Amino acid sequence: MLSPEPAGLDARGTDFLTEIREQPAALRALLDHERDYARVATAARDRGATTIRMVGHGSSDNASSYGVYAFGLLPRWTALRDSITLTAYYDAQLDMSGSTVIALSQSGRTPDVIDYVERARSAGAFTVALTNDISSDLAGVAEEVLPLSAGPERSVAASKTYLNQIAALGLLAAYAATEGRSFSAGIRETADLLEGALPALEQQARTVALPFASVGRMFVVGRGIEFATAREVALKLLETCRVAAEPLTATALAHGPVAALDPLFPVWTIASDDETLPAVIEAAERVRAAGATVVASGTAAAKLSGAAYTLPVPMPPAALLSPLLSVVPGQLFAWALARARGLDADHPVGLTKVTLAR
Amino acid sequence: MLSPEPAGLDARGTDFLTEIREQPAALRALLDHERDYARVATAARDRGATTIRMVGHGSSDNASSYGVYAFGLLPRWTALRDSITLTAYYDAQLDMSGSTVIALSQSGRTPDVIDYVERARSAGAFTVALTNDISSDLAGVAEEVLPLSAGPERSVAASKTYLNQIAALGLLAAYAATEGRSFSAGIRETADLLEGALPALEQQARTVALPFASVGRMFVVGRGIEFATAREVALKLLETCRVAAEPLTATALAHGPVAALDPLFPVWTIASDDETLPAVIEAAERVRAAGATVVASGTAAAKLSGAAYTLPVPMPPAALLSPLLSVVPGQLFAWALARARGLDADHPVGLTKVTLAR
Repeated sequence: MLSPEPAGLDARGTDFLTEIREQPAALRALLDHERDYARVATAARDRGATTIRMVGHGSSDNASSYGVYAFGLLPRWTALRDSITLTAYYDAQLDMSGSTVIALSQSGRTPDVIDYVERARSAGAFTVALTNDISSDLAGVAEEVLPLSAGPERSVAASKTYLNQIAALGLLAAYAATEGRSFSAGIRETADLLEGALPALEQQARTVALPFASVGRMFVVGRGIEFATAREVALKLLETCRVAAEPLTATALAHGPVAALDPLFPVWTIASDDETLPAVIEAAERVRAAGATVVASGTAAAKLSGAAYTLPVPMPPAALLSPLLSVVPGQLFAWALARARGLDADHPVGLTKVTLAR
Repeated sequence: MLSPEPAGLDARGTDFLTEIREQPAALRALLDHERDYARVATAARDRGATTIRMVGHGSSDNASSYGVYAFGLLPRWTALRDSITLTAYYDAQLDMSGSTVIALSQSGRTPDVIDYVERARSAGAFTVALTNDISSDLAGVAEEVLPLSAGPERSVAASKTYLNQIAALGLLAAYAATEGRSFSAGIRETADLLEGALPALEQQARTVALPFASVGRMFVVGRGIEFATAREVALKLLETCRVAAEPLTATALAHGPVAALDPLFPVWTIASDDETLPAVIEAAERVRAAGATVVASGTAAAKLSGAAYTLPVPMPPAALLSPLLSVVPGQLFAWALARARGLDADHPVGLTKVTLAR
């Protein structure tokens, strides 16, 4: 007879899993603040502050990769992940009139993000804080605050904070394009789809994780709106599973990194059913030709023939909502893999929930 | 008596090493075209095309990370690594009047970069091709062509092309700030410093590479103007040594990836003597606390106490020129490590010199 898992081990990663499961509810909570998003979007438009400068670290920076596409595709504004260093360390005096700054920080306490916002505001930017803590220092220095409303997040590895950040950026972009109401309805519908899909995804992730228990390195490939997903999945694998996981676009993979692949170097691939799919399929074929294992996730996971494992997600009402679903198999895989490796995803060694590193 | 190295093995990586050594000469050749850079910078300023959109893949994209700082610090213009996917795949119709596009491609034959430039030009951007082949398709579709002038590059792993790209971006930014003449004098002086430093760096890199022969994963840490260097060194390690090497900023390291470190996971750190140095020193301390080995390079390598290996470079006449020197120890380390691992840096498996992947 197998002895039961010791109680101490059993609790490992419980917060992370609980918060992954809370994501549909977190998305709905965000929509309670829809009017704030509409107001800030209108203000940005009225001020002509249509260059979007996003700043944040870790998962917040990953979410910003999604913002590039949300603002580019909806109001057709240029959005960039701005360099904090350029402004906050080098003191470069850029003219930021015509810019909206969106500062992303779960805690609202990230020192150099606060410093950046103060300087950007002096340089003429319209400054907006996107945070779970609307009474934080970050909220205090920005002109406007948008509540992230993900609720308390106890696991060091972020999940619902990230999901609400991408939903928030999408909602703001949609309101800037005067398409906010249909986008928020889409988020609500996607939350329902996610709730329905979670139990099966959780089961699949447990099964897929087992053969990866001794893997030391992975690539995570995503393109366009799913590059944010690739970055976030890679970060989860690094921080919770101690896997050297690097995010790459489908094209970047071909420009060098493909040479490092071998049968012990698996590639997690996010395939969504949009204009980038042919490039992602081509990249997966390169990976297979190098002898590496492909794990396919995303709405178009089934279209990656030759994938050893497939974790598809449902099709949301609009392509731009796919990243709300496609990150979840990666979160669950990281949770399950951490357990398989005897690691505690809630408390990775050397990390704290609020990072005060500059 | 040791038997001599077989002749076939001896030739491995010869092109890569030869081209690393040719970098001082390549930099001087770029300066023969100084007037072209002055003309294009003036045109961008006169047209008010002061948002700089850089596009390229692989080493070209790495060089663009430097461009963000060169344009931000010299003419104080906003420069971004633009999304090729947003324009070329999703067909987002952004207004690009007020933008200068700098398309970076060694060969001038990268398909989606050419596609992007055609679309950006229709959208009102001032388009500039920066390429070794001034009769390439890319040169044909752009309004202006700037010769990279690095000379023929035979090794698949780029070296002098990358160095000339960062010098070219710096020169263009300097002329946009009407500081071109002093910057070009600085490049010339830096080429001389590099020439003097190369023999010793080559010897040091051989020595440092040996204990890393069996390493499978590394982080490469750099911040601000040296983030481009970190990206380029990581790419060299991936493509020539099959090491899973990920570039990180000093702050990004603390936001998760530090949890993955252990004594078998070394960190290559680029420390330059500028405003980011305290953050880089702090990051190196975190790495050491995690039990990982630190290799220090850059002008301030000696200031990373606790580094197991140190590969310092000379101080150039201006801080912004440091990346022309600080990448070279990483190039040489990759060359030496590839040899130590029995790999041919000139011809990595699965790569060709011109990447036509979309």
